[in-house]
Amino acid sequence: MGELEPHRIVRLEDDAVVLLDQRRLPDEEVDLRCGSTPEVAEAIRVLAVRGAPAIGVAAAYAMALAAERGEDLDAAFAVLASSRPTAVNLRWALDAMHDEPTRERAERIHADEVDRCRQMGAHAVELFPPAARVLTHCNAGALATGGYGTALGAVRAAYEAGLVAHVWVDETRPLLQGARLTAWELEQLGIPYAVVVDGAAASLMARGEVDLVVTGADRIAANGDTANKIGTYALAVAARHHRLPLVVVAPTSTLDPAAATGTAIPIEERDPSEVTPRFAARNPAFDVTPGDLVSAIVTEEGVHRAPYDASLPRAVAAAR
Amino acid sequence: MGELEPHRIVRLEDDAVVLLDQRRLPDEEVDLRCGSTPEVAEAIRVLAVRGAPAIGVAAAYAMALAAERGEDLDAAFAVLASSRPTAVNLRWALDAMHDEPTRERAERIHADEVDRCRQMGAHAVELFPPAARVLTHCNAGALATGGYGTALGAVRAAYEAGLVAHVWVDETRPLLQGARLTAWELEQLGIPYAVVVDGAAASLMARGEVDLVVTGADRIAANGDTANKIGTYALAVAARHHRLPLVVVAPTSTLDPAAATGTAIPIEERDPSEVTPRFAARNPAFDVTPGDLVSAIVTEEGVHRAPYDASLPRAVAAAR
Repeated sequence: MGELEPHRIVRLEDDAVVLLDQRRLPDEEVDLRCGSTPEVAEAIRVLAVRGAPAIGVAAAYAMALAAERGEDLDAAFAVLASSRPTAVNLRWALDAMHDEPTRERAERIHADEVDRCRQMGAHAVELFPPAARVLTHCNAGALATGGYGTALGAVRAAYEAGLVAHVWVDETRPLLQGARLTAWELEQLGIPYAVVVDGAAASLMARGEVDLVVTGADRIAANGDTANKIGTYALAVAARHHRLPLVVVAPTSTLDPAAATGTAIPIEERDPSEVTPRFAARNPAFDVTPGDLVSAIVTEEGVHRAPYDASLPRAVAAAR
Repeated sequence: MGELEPHRIVRLEDDAVVLLDQRRLPDEEVDLRCGSTPEVAEAIRVLAVRGAPAIGVAAAYAMALAAERGEDLDAAFAVLASSRPTAVNLRWALDAMHDEPTRERAERIHADEVDRCRQMGAHAVELFPPAARVLTHCNAGALATGGYGTALGAVRAAYEAGLVAHVWVDETRPLLQGARLTAWELEQLGIPYAVVVDGAAASLMARGEVDLVVTGADRIAANGDTANKIGTYALAVAARHHRLPLVVVAPTSTLDPAAATGTAIPIEERDPSEVTPRFAARNPAFDVTPGDLVSAIVTEEGVHRAPYDASLPRAVAAAR
């Protein structure tokens, strides 16, 4: 048990992008070898690799492989960019790779994401009270970022600082990233936790068993409106009702200054059969939490507060 | 397709209480024969029959069977009463059967529950706006009550009155009573619906796609505090945030005047393996919604409003 190494999560070998297949976790630790750009795009689409920063890293490695093979990089860019619509990090990584399509650049993107996670963790520690009972949603851990984690990186840093008593893990339906991935990571890290159904979070708050809510993000608009896994908005409303802080932890690559508000963020609608194979269903994969329900946004540049339309552009500028 | 008949859900044959096994729905319609009091108690415990009114009916039939066999009724009472702690209807039905332990009394309890559901439906219709988009949680339908339904009975009555455009069905983790049972009932009734994950409900409200929330209840305290399936409280908080009504539909047998507030209601904690078989988990089966988040409580006696400590005792007195 212990740390999940970045190269175990996603790496570039000579002839393939190799991913730890997150669909098979926690039951099996199986690599998925993607030998082509379409195979990487498909791995992103089916969530073999997921989490906004991690899909950016996987796409960067795919671009490097395509460049080494002399393939059309505009075509590779288009195939990868269309794999999932909500996470803006994907587009960010593709832009960077289009400018400098080398293995070294992709590996630097990966290493930088992990470094940024550690910086976010260090900044976020100040937001944890002593003996914090933290609630998190989905998986914003090492698996989601290629190493260390955003929201879970913050939990980890705070735990190492002696500030975390317990982590409540929303199971995160329909695909159970909390119950499958976050619980698996916390188990390895030795951090005390318990999985609960998503519907239980608000009643835990009512019972006084939660001190703060910490999540990642898939895209953050200029005003702080935050797209994240479906269910995050419900937590934000419940946290506000109980006067608890909701902290979003995400690198500046998740900020989208081009989106003025959350309404400009495309929300992926996935196959209803992920919810139920038998009956009529709707399956939005993300929701948007208004910036005014977000107590703080932590990037590698620091802790940002409302008004976000002032603080977030400063973070983006500082990160350049 | 069409109506689910009360005797299909639960009935007393010569030598057994026979239940439509709700664990097997919607994949199979299989009867479970319970030939003894302990077998009925076990069927209640494992949720082969569930829903506060329906478990009261099943327990009543078990008492009638025990009486016909000359068994110790105090012992039967104790075995059945301990099967599940939260629903007060169970205790209510057992008390009635202890006073008059006959097959006729049990059948009258069953018929009365269904009649009360129809009366609740008739009262609840006035709370539905035209073209209502209704959100419901868990299953408070025919299956939960032995026929017709409480919350779903209200939806059904309002639909027949031309007032329902769409029903959002919370899937209701961990046991998926919404995705398995409510969707199955709505499909048979031909009422338009879509299942969503529990975490999606608040964001549907934010998008203006919900007009009211309607749920059943397992026990209602004297002040209107309402114990219902885990996740109901989160809906109540979200409904209040979006200024949407939350309507609770439950017979007077669900009212517990002996519980002054929700803190007096025992909350069943079920096996964590229902949430995840592999990791640490917590599994409270119910939560308590404070009466001040409940817009109206509908019983067979009418529509009751706050202050509930005045209106609910009148309903109980009228029902006697």
